[in-house]
Amino acid sequence: MKPMTKSPLQIARSSYQPKLPAALKGNVVLKEGATTESVADQADIKSLFPNTYGMPLITFETGVKKENPTVGVGVILSGGQAPGGHNVISGLYDGLKALNPENKLYGFLGGPSGLVDHEYIELTKEIVDEYRNTGGFDIIGSGRTKLEEEWQYEKGAEICKKLGINAIVVIGGDDSNTNACVLAEYYSQKNTGIQVIGCPKTIDGDLKNEMIETSFGFDTACKVYSELIGNIQRDANSAKKYWHFIRLMGRSASHITLECALQSQPNICIVYEEVEAKNQTLNNVVNDIVDVIVHRANHGLNFGTILIPEGLIEFIPAMKKLIAELNDLLAHNEDFNAMNTDEEKRQYVKGLLSKESSDVYRSLPKGIAKQLTLDRDPHGNVQVSLIETEKLLIEMVAKRLAQFKAEGKYKGKFSAINHFFGYEGRCAIPSNFDADYTYSLGYTASILISEGKTGYMSSIRNLTAPATEWIAGGVPITMMMNMEKRHGKMKPVIQKALVLLDGAPFKFFASQRESWADEQSSYVYPGPIQYYGPTEVCDQPTHTLLLEQGK
Amino acid sequence: MKPMTKSPLQIARSSYQPKLPAALKGNVVLKEGATTESVADQADIKSLFPNTYGMPLITFETGVKKENPTVGVGVILSGGQAPGGHNVISGLYDGLKALNPENKLYGFLGGPSGLVDHEYIELTKEIVDEYRNTGGFDIIGSGRTKLEEEWQYEKGAEICKKLGINAIVVIGGDDSNTNACVLAEYYSQKNTGIQVIGCPKTIDGDLKNEMIETSFGFDTACKVYSELIGNIQRDANSAKKYWHFIRLMGRSASHITLECALQSQPNICIVYEEVEAKNQTLNNVVNDIVDVIVHRANHGLNFGTILIPEGLIEFIPAMKKLIAELNDLLAHNEDFNAMNTDEEKRQYVKGLLSKESSDVYRSLPKGIAKQLTLDRDPHGNVQVSLIETEKLLIEMVAKRLAQFKAEGKYKGKFSAINHFFGYEGRCAIPSNFDADYTYSLGYTASILISEGKTGYMSSIRNLTAPATEWIAGGVPITMMMNMEKRHGKMKPVIQKALVLLDGAPFKFFASQRESWADEQSSYVYPGPIQYYGPTEVCDQPTHTLLLEQGK
Repeated sequence: MKPMTKSPLQIARSSYQPKLPAALKGNVVLKEGATTESVADQADIKSLFPNTYGMPLITFETGVKKENPTVGVGVILSGGQAPGGHNVISGLYDGLKALNPENKLYGFLGGPSGLVDHEYIELTKEIVDEYRNTGGFDIIGSGRTKLEEEWQYEKGAEICKKLGINAIVVIGGDDSNTNACVLAEYYSQKNTGIQVIGCPKTIDGDLKNEMIETSFGFDTACKVYSELIGNIQRDANSAKKYWHFIRLMGRSASHITLECALQSQPNICIVYEEVEAKNQTLNNVVNDIVDVIVHRANHGLNFGTILIPEGLIEFIPAMKKLIAELNDLLAHNEDFNAMNTDEEKRQYVKGLLSKESSDVYRSLPKGIAKQLTLDRDPHGNVQVSLIETEKLLIEMVAKRLAQFKAEGKYKGKFSAINHFFGYEGRCAIPSNFDADYTYSLGYTASILISEGKTGYMSSIRNLTAPATEWIAGGVPITMMMNMEKRHGKMKPVIQKALVLLDGAPFKFFASQRESWADEQSSYVYPGPIQYYGPTEVCDQPTHTLLLEQGK
Repeated sequence: MKPMTKSPLQIARSSYQPKLPAALKGNVVLKEGATTESVADQADIKSLFPNTYGMPLITFETGVKKENPTVGVGVILSGGQAPGGHNVISGLYDGLKALNPENKLYGFLGGPSGLVDHEYIELTKEIVDEYRNTGGFDIIGSGRTKLEEEWQYEKGAEICKKLGINAIVVIGGDDSNTNACVLAEYYSQKNTGIQVIGCPKTIDGDLKNEMIETSFGFDTACKVYSELIGNIQRDANSAKKYWHFIRLMGRSASHITLECALQSQPNICIVYEEVEAKNQTLNNVVNDIVDVIVHRANHGLNFGTILIPEGLIEFIPAMKKLIAELNDLLAHNEDFNAMNTDEEKRQYVKGLLSKESSDVYRSLPKGIAKQLTLDRDPHGNVQVSLIETEKLLIEMVAKRLAQFKAEGKYKGKFSAINHFFGYEGRCAIPSNFDADYTYSLGYTASILISEGKTGYMSSIRNLTAPATEWIAGGVPITMMMNMEKRHGKMKPVIQKALVLLDGAPFKFFASQRESWADEQSSYVYPGPIQYYGPTEVCDQPTHTLLLEQGK
């Protein structure tokens, strides 16, 4: 391997020693707490997970030194990248070596498929050292293969047996951790002796609950996006002539968008959990935006910023219905596929939709309507992720403002610029918070393994306190589960955390947004993530976490 | 004014004391060097600038304290935002107050129009302190009004007289500094007693020459874009499934794109000065990209990054010709405007273009061809800036790859994601380099004013040395001028600095690009701008500057 060319910051960061909770610094003993229940559907979950249901919560304390038998561990990065993945691995590595220098760590390559296809490397000190405190998942790569079938589990057991692997650590989001738990249960039932431990990863912030305060990567990604939003806001406030429509990654929850709003105080921020709760239409959303634009124009302010969550379209109830109807209508529809012109297809679709969906369809700008009808994935489904929601909104807002202008209700100027941020933050160099948190998560996983635990998620709590006061331990994954319908069948899954409209982060936002919309400028400019310098600049957790914990 | 809510970094940065060249730290005396000539067209420039031509270069040295009469100064921010504008103003303010506490500084609001329309504020300590070391131009706003006519100069003189302003500082790009020099000459000729000093601003980096080593803002903006490019590259190298096409601001020169390439080492970087020099067509550019994609695919690497300068389309000679023909054909063309369908317009245009341009027009994806024909500005001109070049290239590359696949020449997978970065960097918090450089530029301007100079640009040289060794002084603006055709007439203008194909930055890039294209990953991850920490992390100038100065 040719050595990487490194930037000065990469070189400087490589020697950063992540902060650990006090309990992890010496010899650790495990303290078992109360037994647990799943968040809902207890009987179902219990029957599906007879071996891994109801296990106690675990915390760690400082204890006496003991002998630890040699273990082999395999680690998997699953799904989309999140800052800190490499530090989970370096924490896991250091923890395993501290327990017993003979312990070995293997990395399965390219995500869960590496376990099934027996693609792996041994993670040596040389390799791990090269990736400390860096962003990305490139140390072993990631992938989206789902571990859901017995033959996959058996192939996994085969390679574990061959390599002497006693435990697998799955670093992933809610789905990957659900699958990790199913795998843990399967290996317990089959007496393979293979433990499975999960780690909570996702920039989206939707894997959290009573015991998991936040998923890793959320902090860093939101800080990168907020840096950019702040820069754009300063530009808007200097040039005073553009409305910036900024879409942010996060298809199934608005946590990223809300956190960025709390950090940067834009004029408008759309939270789709609210759109859904209010049963708003796309026109309602457009009208809300137009109201603010007109109001600001009346005060001579023809500029502003709007944050838009990636998955907005899918959360608007009427759009959701339209998309579902289109998917039903058009999947494998030979008549439709045989049609020659766009107009023919458009008319055909309009004729078959329900009255309500047909009205929604007609109200959409032509380009979007066409995209919904024509650009379909191999299964015939609408490719919602391809819809540039920020451009759709700009088009609809401009049209409405033109009407208003014609009616004399609006005298401003409207020029809009669109942005989408996602890939810009998923592999950023982890913030001190994420570097410390992920290293601690990995270190914790090593101890859960050495104590013979399986079906647990590595857990670090009390995250708004200094790192030394963080509480390390393990949470049974079954505790986070309920039954949900997936592809028409009820499945045990980890409950996804949406933005709670009665939660402190949203309530704070809701109490502020009118003044943010109104004023010349309430903008805050967070600036880039700092790794050195005053602690209030370098070590702050997210506003979401601070507000959730009453700070 | 309601106080701003500030981020922790904003608060911490407000107390940063910019570093100054040693000569500016105490009492300064001025040292005049050799007289100067313009870079070309000496006779023409001399006749146009009888009062401000041929003045000597100026440097500063430490000297004895002297009495400085009170002066009033007005400052103007002109054109697009660039990080550090606020520090030019705070340096100017501090310099003026150090010379004589009675000196006054006024800010003209909203750009050069503030001078003409008599919109201004006095810049007090309270105001200036609020903006130290921050990004943006919001302290007084900016604007794009051009100072080109005598009545504007007269209106300016009127307000200067009223406020007791002896000197105007224009912070702007090449055009604004050209106009500053014309204004200086006019005020000299008319014996108004008003001096004019320029400061070299533009993120584009195209205002530089023998005496001006770099324009301010270029450093910070390139570092912000490079941070994002690095993050995207780490993502590409982790997911291993996307080609990222990244367009970067900078319409008239590729400096930003080249600097970002030097910082991040992408697989492909297009420099349009090279495209023009080689007389390449759009198809040539596409073919070059496809070659690299196919080559990487042959080695199993179906991912990569491509940097594209914003103004590429305008620099491709055949496209430039097509656009010029379209502009001639369609401006105020009533026949064309009366046509009803896109197809009718398309056929009409095809019929009237030259053979060469018609061929180019036919080769373009339909969407782009339509945009060139239909989306026209109020003067009937093609709106080149609206063309999303990165999407155009993705479409053309995908088409070519599909052909290759059908012919069995390509077996890879091609998925592309597009990005455009511009507004994200123009108002970033200035890097230490830009904070120091701009503060020194402003401070220098105050001394040039107190010494009665006019028609000079504030100049700080030796910028790759530590700030204390920087050389402060002034350069006659006429020295940077030549005659160029503008709107059909020969005009004296500051020569724009394009990327030199025989310059060290391009030559270094050219020597490396094959290995960057080939390898699994040569990516460098610069990370976010750091304001605290090791000096090699926090205080480095651009690679462009280091290479230009042989470092």
